This record gives sequence, C-alpha cells and structure tokens, in this order.
Amino acid sequence: MKNPFFKNYGPFKVHDLINEINYFEDKNISNNLIEDIKDLVSAESNHLTFFHSKKYHLQALNTKASYCLTLNNLKEYLPKKCQPICVENVLLSLSKITAKFYPDSINDDFDSSVKDIQEIDFGVKVKFGKNVLVGENVKFGKNCLIGHNTIIEKNVRFGSNCSIGSNVIIRNTIIEDNVSILDGCIIGKKGFGFFPNNKKNLRYPHIGIVYIGENSEIGSGTTIDRGSMSNTIIGKNTFLDNQIHIAHNNKIGDNCIIAGQVGFAGSSVIGNNVMIGGQAGVSGHLKIGNNVQIGGGSGVIKDIPDNTKVMGYPSKNLKQFLKNSK
Amino acid sequence: MKNPFFKNYGPFKVHDLINEINYFEDKNISNNLIEDIKDLVSAESNHLTFFHSKKYHLQALNTKASYCLTLNNLKEYLPKKCQPICVENVLLSLSKITAKFYPDSINDDFDSSVKDIQEIDFGVKVKFGKNVLVGENVKFGKNCLIGHNTIIEKNVRFGSNCSIGSNVIIRNTIIEDNVSILDGCIIGKKGFGFFPNNKKNLRYPHIGIVYIGENSEIGSGTTIDRGSMSNTIIGKNTFLDNQIHIAHNNKIGDNCIIAGQVGFAGSSVIGNNVMIGGQAGVSGHLKIGNNVQIGGGSGVIKDIPDNTKVMGYPSKNLKQFLKNSK
Amino acid sequence: MKNPFFKNYGPFKVHDLINEINYFEDKNISNNLIEDIKDLVSAESNHLTFFHSKKYHLQALNTKASYCLTLNNLKEYLPKKCQPICVENVLLSLSKITAKFYPDSINDDFDSSVKDIQEIDFGVKVKFGKNVLVGENVKFGKNCLIGHNTIIEKNVRFGSNCSIGSNVIIRNTIIEDNVSILDGCIIGKKGFGFFPNNKKNLRYPHIGIVYIGENSEIGSGTTIDRGSMSNTIIGKNTFLDNQIHIAHNNKIGDNCIIAGQVGFAGSSVIGNNVMIGGQAGVSGHLKIGNNVQIGGGSGVIKDIPDNTKVMGYPSKNLKQFLKNSK
Repeated sequence: MKNPFFKNYGPFKVHDLINEINYFEDKNISNNLIEDIKDLVSAESNHLTFFHSKKYHLQALNTKASYCLTLNNLKEYLPKKCQPICVENVLLSLSKITAKFYPDSINDDFDSSVKDIQEIDFGVKVKFGKNVLVGENVKFGKNCLIGHNTIIEKNVRFGSNCSIGSNVIIRNTIIEDNVSILDGCIIGKKGFGFFPNNKKNLRYPHIGIVYIGENSEIGSGTTIDRGSMSNTIIGKNTFLDNQIHIAHNNKIGDNCIIAGQVGFAGSSVIGNNVMIGGQAGVSGHLKIGNNVQIGGGSGVIKDIPDNTKVMGYPSKNLKQFLKNSK
Repeated sequence: MKNPFFKNYGPFKVHDLINEINYFEDKNISNNLIEDIKDLVSAESNHLTFFHSKKYHLQALNTKASYCLTLNNLKEYLPKKCQPICVENVLLSLSKITAKFYPDSINDDFDSSVKDIQEIDFGVKVKFGKNVLVGENVKFGKNCLIGHNTIIEKNVRFGSNCSIGSNVIIRNTIIEDNVSILDGCIIGKKGFGFFPNNKKNLRYPHIGIVYIGENSEIGSGTTIDRGSMSNTIIGKNTFLDNQIHIAHNNKIGDNCIIAGQVGFAGSSVIGNNVMIGGQAGVSGHLKIGNNVQIGGGSGVIKDIPDNTKVMGYPSKNLKQFLKNSK
Repeated sequence: MKNPFFKNYGPFKVHDLINEINYFEDKNISNNLIEDIKDLVSAESNHLTFFHSKKYHLQALNTKASYCLTLNNLKEYLPKKCQPICVENVLLSLSKITAKFYPDSINDDFDSSVKDIQEIDFGVKVKFGKNVLVGENVKFGKNCLIGHNTIIEKNVRFGSNCSIGSNVIIRNTIIEDNVSILDGCIIGKKGFGFFPNNKKNLRYPHIGIVYIGENSEIGSGTTIDRGSMSNTIIGKNTFLDNQIHIAHNNKIGDNCIIAGQVGFAGSSVIGNNVMIGGQAGVSGHLKIGNNVQIGGGSGVIKDIPDNTKVMGYPSKNLKQFLKNSK
C-alpha cells in the first residue's frame, strides 16, 4: 500500500541510499532501484526494510523485501532473496533513508497551504463555524460539523456525521463515520522521536498517520501523535476523556473506555473492551490484552494478559494491590 | 428551581415516559403529567426522581417527587405519595427519560449560534480582544475582559470584574465576580458519561452546569465538565493551577489551592481550605473533608476526614507515607 | 541588569516603601532612593534585596544591596553596608514592594495592545499564518514561522529559524535560534503563586521571564510559567514532549529529554542530559544532577545526585524499585 499522505520522492538506487548512511563496507550489493521503505511485514519486492532486534526474527524470515537494514549478527535470519545491509545503528540509518524518501515528514511546521473554508466548495456536506481553515487534500463525508477556529491542515479524511469542536488542529489523519472530536484536540502531529545528539538532536521522520475508527469520541485537549513507521490507531466505539496523550504508534482496540489524563508512551498495543482509569500511564512497546481493566493512577510497565484487572505503580493484580495497600 | 440553561421539552404523561424505557410491567401507575426530572432532594410534586442505591435511602424517605425510577428491592423506602416505577437499570432509564425532557443536553456540537462580539451591544461592560465570539443567552457584569479568539458559547453568565484569557471556550456556566480564567481553558462541556454498548455507546444527558464562585482563578489549559443531574461547583477564592481536569459533578469548596495537572474523576465533594499537590488524582464519589492536605502525586481512593494530611498511592496518613518510604 | 520586560516604576524612597508594608519599628533607617529590587546575588548598591531563610546565609554575607528585607534572627548575617529591614513575613513584604516597583507584573489579563501581524512590518523575516496577533516589544530573528491564530503578546524576542505552531500564546519570553514550539502551547504567563487569604488571595508579582535555549523543542499543549523573582529556563537542545507543565522558576539544563505529561512544581534546578519518563513529577526547590534518569510515573521529592537512575513514588534507586516491585 502506498503511503496515503506523504509524497514518496523515490525510487532511488541502492548505492545512492547507502551513501546517505556512510556505509563503507564491501559494496557487494546489487544496485537496483528501491521504490519504498517499509517494515518487515508490509514490505514487498523492490522495497527496503529494517530488522534491528531478534524479537522480530519470524517476521524477518518471511519478509518479501529485496533489501534490509540490519545488524551483522541478525542477517542470517533473512531469506536469500533479501540482501542485508549491515550497519551499526539500524534505526539511525533507517531514519536517514526514510528522510530521503519522505522529506516532508520530518518537520511539522504550520501548514501554510490552508485556506478559509468559505473559499472552498464542499457543497452541503459540512456545516462550519467562524475562522475555519482547511489545507490541501482534505475530504469530508456527509453532515460533518467543524467548530470555530479549527484548523484542518493537509491530509485529513473525514467519514460522515463527524462532529469536530472548536480550536482543534488535525493533520495526516483518517477519521471514520460518527466520530466526535471535542475542543482543543491536537491530532496527527509527529511523535516525540529523535536521536539525541549533544549539539542538535536529529529528528526522525514520521511517515505514519492517525486512524480513528467509527463511533469514537476524543475528549477535550487530547493529543494524538501520528506513527513513525506504522500508524497510530484508535479503534471503533472507543471513548477517550479529556487531556489524554497518545504517543506515536499506539494501537488502541475497539470499545475501550479511557478516563482523563491517561498517557501512552508509544508503540503499545491495547486490546478491545479495555477500561483505563484516570491518570494511568502505559509504557512503551507493551501488549495489553482484551477486556483488561487498569485502575486509575496505575503505571503499567509490562504486558497484561486478557481479562485481567490491575492497579498500582507498577501495576499488579488488583486484589494484590488492594491487599498490599491496607 | 428551573434548569437555568437547558430547555425543558415537558411536561409529559407518565405512560408516555414509560414507553421510552420499554417498561412492560403492570401499568397500575397513574398517568399524570410530569413536569421535570430531578434528584431525590430537589424533586417536587409532579416531578419524576430516581433512586438506585440504598446509600440514598434517607433522601428517598423524604422525597417530594410524585414518581420514582427505582429497583424492586428499594421501592419500600419511598413515601406513599411517591409511586415507584421499578426498572432493571435505573440510570439507563433515567438517561432515556432525561433525554426526552432535555434533548439539547446530549451532544455538545459547536455552537453555531455565536456572533462576533462586535455585532452585539454589551455597552461599556466588556473589553474584548480580536475574534471573540459570543452565543445566545450570555450576560456580563461590569468591567469584564475577554481575550482574543475566546468563544463564549451559549448560556454563560459572568459577574463583574472577570478576566477571561485568550483561546478559552465556555458554555453552560455561571461565573461570579472577580474570577480569572486563564488561556486555553475549556469549561462547561458535557462530562465523560455514557452507557457502554458494543456497537455504539449511549451518551447520557448532562443537564447540570458549571458554577465558579467569586475571586477564584482557573489556570491555563484546565478543563471543567458540567454536571449530569447535578452541577459541577468550584467554591469562592479557590485557585486552580494549569492543566487540571475536573470531571462532572465534582463540588470543590472555598479557599482551596490545587496545583498543576491534578485530576478529579467525578462526583466527589471536596471541603474548604483543601490543598492538593501537583498531579494528584481524586477518585469518583468521595468525600474529602475541610482543611485536608493531599501531597503531590497522591492517588486518593477513599474518603478523607477533616484536618488530615495524606500522601501516597493509594493515599495514606502523611507520616505513615514518609515512614514507609524511607 | 535591568528587567528586560517589566517597567520599573521606581526609584522610591526607602521610607515610602516601608509604609507599604506597615512597618512600625524604629525608623532608624536611612531614607535613600531605592532603584530596584533583586535577589541577594544580583542586587547592587541602591537596591533592596530579601533574605528569608538561613539556607542563603552565604549569599547574604556577600550581597551588595543597600537594604534587605529579612527576619530579626537573620539580620546578623548581612554585611555592614546593607541595612536590615526586619519584618514578620519576608515574602509577603517582598511581594508588596515588588508590586510597587513592577505593578504590570501582577495580573496577566489578555494583551489588548496586539495588532494583526499584517499591520506590522517585519520585512521578510517572518512567514506567518492567518489571524496572527503580535503585541508591543516583539522582535524576530530571520526565517521565523508563526502558525495560525497564534498570539505573540508583548515582550517576546525570537532568534532565527524558529518554528512556532498554531494556537500558541507567548509573552515575556526570550527564545533563541532554531527553537520549535508546537501547537497549543502557553508560555510566559505568571506562575501559580499567591499568599492565601480567606477572603481573597493576594497574588504576588512575577517579574521573571521564560528563557528557551537554542535548538530546543516544546511539545503540543505544554505550559511554561515565567519566574517570580528569577527566571524559568529551558536549556539548549532540550526536547519536551506534549502536555508538560513547567511551573515558575524551574531551571532545566541542556540536552534533556522530557516525555509527555511530566510536571515540575517550581523552583527546581535540573542538570544537563537528564531524561525523564512520561507523567513523572518533580517537587519544588529540588536539585537534580547531570545525567540523571527518572523513570516514567516517578514522584521525585528529594535531590538526586549526578549520574543516578531513579524510579518510583517516592522515587528511589532504579534497581531497588525494580526489586521491591517484584
């Protein structure tokens, strides 16, 4: 699948890409054209992929990519048709090459392409407030409402019957039918990702989007960052309260209920029918099962199996928490 | 007392209301006109009330309502003059009937009735910034300031000498004299309340308001939701720092000092002279006494008596917390 | 150094200042002109300073101020050239006198001096969005971007290559080169400081500013309050994620990485290369060393030495936290 919103400046020759990353090894690597850069699972032939942790060795075994940025000690997992490009720091190299393919995804300066919505003809699809700005590549379903001072920056698709509040800012986002987004939300900005460097940190590109499933509601003042290599996803009929922060790459399931001021550090997968109390925090790269209940104020730092109730910091079984805290 | 802001579409005949909730029992219930729907204490004759937990049996004994949504095992507490309407789920039935009386209280779509404040004549009462929008039924005392891009949606009453910042959004709120509301606050939106349903959650109506007492200050980026059946209240001379979240139905006393990023889950009652440190959280339906001090980061999950200092998650006596944490 | 942004209404005669604080003691104090009010270290001759805690006795010994608000039991630490003015409550007296010198620093009503940026000639230095407002005494370096609906209130200096998002509000702030400030930030407002009083709290003046070093980034929806007597400082190349709250007088070092929803209570000093996980909180008046790592959700209530990893609430050594929480 093509990237829905970011322009791909490729294809590029493999050797040109390798130059970007100061790759000095034996260039016994064929110099074909690379069309895109993708993760191990979604990569196709003529794509470059990346493999930086043994955790993903099963996906590596089955990748269809023609080339793969990887570590010397991981290259043996790759199939024969996939040529390894061994580097010292896979993610840093990935970042540099992604920036070459998708230079528009690095900075999130304000969208200067926007126009007053009154200058654009959306027919009767949209009822809008005062001072609404709309960027390029924005599409609406039927019966959408857009509140005052809201800025729909470039690359946003709305389903039908969406109700967007006032002072909202959205970009790079797909929103399905019957979604409500309350006042003051900021959705689709690049995540908090970069390579620390003592003079000037190196931002890494965020080529993912935010996806919000149908019938969901996003509370006031909530921030949802778009994904880096994958997408940030909010499932169907999932309700978020006010002042929640959802960092890049989180995938939240359907029918979840998430109370105020909860935070997700990034790249976690949350199941369906999950309930989370106010001010709880979920660390990065975790898997939270279906039907999980997380008590308010909890700090979740490891995976939680299906049908479990937890509370505490760090979170533990709810009964144990209540017993310990007597 | 009449609802100050939401239009009452009643009265309705009792049997018509019963139809809304799929009530199939013996209709041995008189078919009078019901004028309003209220809680046990404030209901008057010709009102419908609700009684869903034994916790409220004293209020039930004394209610003046003519009808009451309740459970079969609670109906005996009601006075003779109050006819019970026994249902399986009191709050769900309440929600459906409230929606019939107050349909405007369910969704909080942006207020399309607003006008540029320059088109309205508030005389010399208000000094305002650029791009200020004001909805219907908004009243100002003397010497009020309204900052740039602020949206006073419908149903707001200001006292005198109020200073409202920029990028603020307010609706359904009464604000007394000398109140400061700093930039970016969102006040008076419906709370985070609904009945979960696997296809599409059912929002419940919020017919309450937000009330802010005189001399109080609300910090930047704070959100205060209006009440569902009762009001959300901030007392006199109570100061809130930035990025606080106050959910529906909380009642906060006078002379309180609440630091940044604190959250209240809803329906709690906080006494006077209460001090709360940054990032603390207060669970729902609690009673926090007068002169209580809650340390920063605490998670309060049970009632706190007057004159108590607590800290911890869950919060405990401050001395015990400090001793345990050595 | 003169206060960069607040107008000094002085000089004042000492006896006139003393009248402000209901000082009834023997007026055996010379009645010279006082030009400014400063802390012990930065005060010069003809300045008034303050000394309220023995903790600062070394600074007191060396102050160059001509007069000092202090306590009776601290006055002996002052050098002979500095006349003590002994009061019951140093900070309250300080507040009253500061208000006399700097009356514009007490309230942060919206800046009514702003104009539409299109009415001001910044040449080609600034590329700006729709509805941008700019107050008095605002200066830009080269190549700055200012997003839609952003309000640059009075007293802001930008370096070159700054990228400011939309819906941002800034005042009383110095921003160096290459700084990014994302959407919805509120920077430079007075901090949450006042003297509690049961009828009407007494706000104290905030004559400090916010300073943001070069190459730094401030995430969406973050609030940074300006200092009271000193400044609030964000170092160089320090990256802040979304929804962070930085209260008055905090000094954060260079090359720090601070994740979402972190809060700083005020007046703490954070070293260089410090990493802080999401939702952590740092209490007031602490010293956090260089190269410190603070785990997500931690509550820091005491100083942390250099090169230490901590986690927990209250935070402790990381290894101990992980061991305890098994």
